[in-house]
Amino acid sequence: MLERRNPIAVSEAVKKVMEFAYEEKVEWVSLTDSNARFLAEDIAADQDVPSFDRSPYDGFAIRSVDSELATKENPVQFKVVGEIGAGFVYEAEVQAFQAVRIMTGAPIPAGCDAVVMLELTKNEVQNGETFMSINRAYEAGTNISYQGEDVKIGEVLIEKGQYINPGVVALLATFGYAKVPVYRKPIIGVIATGSELLEPDEALAPGKIRNSNAYMSMAQIERAGASFKYFGKFSDDLDVCIEEVKKALAEVDLLITTGGVSVGDYDYLPAIYKAIGAEVLFNKVAMRPGSVTTVAALDGKLLYGLSGNPSACYVGFELFTRPIIRKAFGSNQPHLRREKAVLGEDFTKANPFTRFIRAAVHYDQGQLIATPSGFNKSSAVSSLATADAFIVLPGGSRGYEKNMFVDVLLLDDLQGSEWPWDNIKKYSK
Amino acid sequence: MLERRNPIAVSEAVKKVMEFAYEEKVEWVSLTDSNARFLAEDIAADQDVPSFDRSPYDGFAIRSVDSELATKENPVQFKVVGEIGAGFVYEAEVQAFQAVRIMTGAPIPAGCDAVVMLELTKNEVQNGETFMSINRAYEAGTNISYQGEDVKIGEVLIEKGQYINPGVVALLATFGYAKVPVYRKPIIGVIATGSELLEPDEALAPGKIRNSNAYMSMAQIERAGASFKYFGKFSDDLDVCIEEVKKALAEVDLLITTGGVSVGDYDYLPAIYKAIGAEVLFNKVAMRPGSVTTVAALDGKLLYGLSGNPSACYVGFELFTRPIIRKAFGSNQPHLRREKAVLGEDFTKANPFTRFIRAAVHYDQGQLIATPSGFNKSSAVSSLATADAFIVLPGGSRGYEKNMFVDVLLLDDLQGSEWPWDNIKKYSK
Repeated sequence: MLERRNPIAVSEAVKKVMEFAYEEKVEWVSLTDSNARFLAEDIAADQDVPSFDRSPYDGFAIRSVDSELATKENPVQFKVVGEIGAGFVYEAEVQAFQAVRIMTGAPIPAGCDAVVMLELTKNEVQNGETFMSINRAYEAGTNISYQGEDVKIGEVLIEKGQYINPGVVALLATFGYAKVPVYRKPIIGVIATGSELLEPDEALAPGKIRNSNAYMSMAQIERAGASFKYFGKFSDDLDVCIEEVKKALAEVDLLITTGGVSVGDYDYLPAIYKAIGAEVLFNKVAMRPGSVTTVAALDGKLLYGLSGNPSACYVGFELFTRPIIRKAFGSNQPHLRREKAVLGEDFTKANPFTRFIRAAVHYDQGQLIATPSGFNKSSAVSSLATADAFIVLPGGSRGYEKNMFVDVLLLDDLQGSEWPWDNIKKYSK
Repeated sequence: MLERRNPIAVSEAVKKVMEFAYEEKVEWVSLTDSNARFLAEDIAADQDVPSFDRSPYDGFAIRSVDSELATKENPVQFKVVGEIGAGFVYEAEVQAFQAVRIMTGAPIPAGCDAVVMLELTKNEVQNGETFMSINRAYEAGTNISYQGEDVKIGEVLIEKGQYINPGVVALLATFGYAKVPVYRKPIIGVIATGSELLEPDEALAPGKIRNSNAYMSMAQIERAGASFKYFGKFSDDLDVCIEEVKKALAEVDLLITTGGVSVGDYDYLPAIYKAIGAEVLFNKVAMRPGSVTTVAALDGKLLYGLSGNPSACYVGFELFTRPIIRKAFGSNQPHLRREKAVLGEDFTKANPFTRFIRAAVHYDQGQLIATPSGFNKSSAVSSLATADAFIVLPGGSRGYEKNMFVDVLLLDDLQGSEWPWDNIKKYSK
């Protein structure tokens, strides 16, 4: 039963997957729970910010006209007629040569049009009355934060799909979002396949390896922003597996299996897809690692058959699963962020396929440099720990030299790319 | 009661805070809960990886010597004497011109020293026996992943302090860490101060603003990796505040108050610090925004008095609180990551102090470009939402022009800097 498979281009494979993209439902969570989620509605200002003219400093509110003649030699004195703390309103109208002691954030009293910082005033008490004097003139508007100068009412401040960071949380608080509309997290099922697999708490045995892919995928699911549900390891019995997949699919939004997608006789996935009636979108991609990545669909739900090889599994997730998750969160840039970087060392291996090299990026004078993360055989689990990018090397090339420009896809990134798959090429040095 | 304060340099202020740095306790969590935490012990390999010589492909294991004379014209035929799936061990020793069908990940049978990929073989059944033939020679070692070629037993793979990303999770799984030693998350208390503050679910009123700083700080605490505990808003009564601070301090590892640190009469923090006997490390920093940032210490616990102004509060946290958290997680690079970037637009405002400008970074041909995020008055809450860096402009300069190099501190970063505060300067264009 030797199956011949036709590899398709990475961009074609991603396109086929993205036909199943969807937008998640909205759920409302408390403001403190909204951090690091994705906003599901546009947020417009329900008020001006500031919502009133206010003082950005501690000082004295005055009428600027009264300060016109103030100099070092001839300071002008003001009678301090009151004080106003943040959160309070000064009720009277301020008259000529009167000043009101004002705290940071307090509203400017009627009649005043400037604030003098506290440290630029001289204060004295005469006969039980307080006076303050200044030794220079202030223009109208000095040290006043005007109503609406930061944000005007009605302005759309954040669009849906935005990742909620601390600055966004501040905006949401400012505009009264005690509850925040965020996208529901898709639930992604994970099943491990392979008779050779032991769970991390089992002792090693001859021919066996520990199951790292399922745990790695779960961490990738979380990094992308979704939730996981782990169904453990497949049975060795095909009929049982078929039931396991059916049961799992009913409980999740999409399903990942790790391993079991090679052309070997022992790999069950193709048989399972057939048995449950799933449509195979592709089962071979012209790339390394991850060429056996398989994606199928059943009733609109995607089934990812990721490779049993850790690096291939990792790449398969980031290329094909991540954008579905980010698209579910309303992102217009659901794919890995593509940037140009300078290659940090030679990579001489020729390769007929598009290759995704695990890499660590750093900066030199602000220039992004990408260096392959150690040993790049596809089994090398240790290099995944330090990788924060893939170097994308298009196929058909005779190797790459240090200091050439290359395309990189950034892994620890919140921004993404709209479509990183056009014009990936070998750049001249 | 006008207090005069002496501003200290940012680097001095950070140094004073870092004298209180400490390393957190270790706690053991399940592998799936360890994602995005910080590793609290070095992880060394308890086995070689691979732990046996194995096949990276589906194919046939052979003795390479038998393939020596194989050519297109004269293929060499092998008798298929068995098959071996991943997770199983082939018991017999393979003899001359015998081959064993081998699956990806299965151990190389005794006697064999090469694997021929399945698609490069021709298979036929003759008289009930299976044969496979090949039409080229294979060198010893072809398609064999050797024991220990990825990782050698005893090798330290990840050092404590490492952020646990999906690749690290894979490593932990491989080496049997069903439970993972991670640093406990410090609990950081947050108290909001200010009579002007309304909670997000309260309706606006004259002179009042919604409390955004406390919620923003809590999101910053989470981004840095710690936990928060929100104590709500201070009472307006000083004696009550003193009790509130004492109570809060007993429940947390460090305490942040937002607001209440200006020199105005209504600002309680200095009085509270005095009443509880806290030592004030500094109460004025030569920087904008955030000059009134105050840090005090009591019984080894830090009390942060962050500004009531959102941008100043944000900067104060990232400069002074974040490194304490990251140091608690064993990081040698606890400070914001400093890199050089090209300034994306003119910034002409002269300034006697070191200035931290909220900025958004992007790349052009892999070169980091930093552009101020909109309106940079210190009250501008809206620009915090899009900021992912601070541009650091040293004081005393006469303004900056587009395309100059500047120092930036990256906010959405996992790597950090060891000490970003030396030699911050104005670069020539």
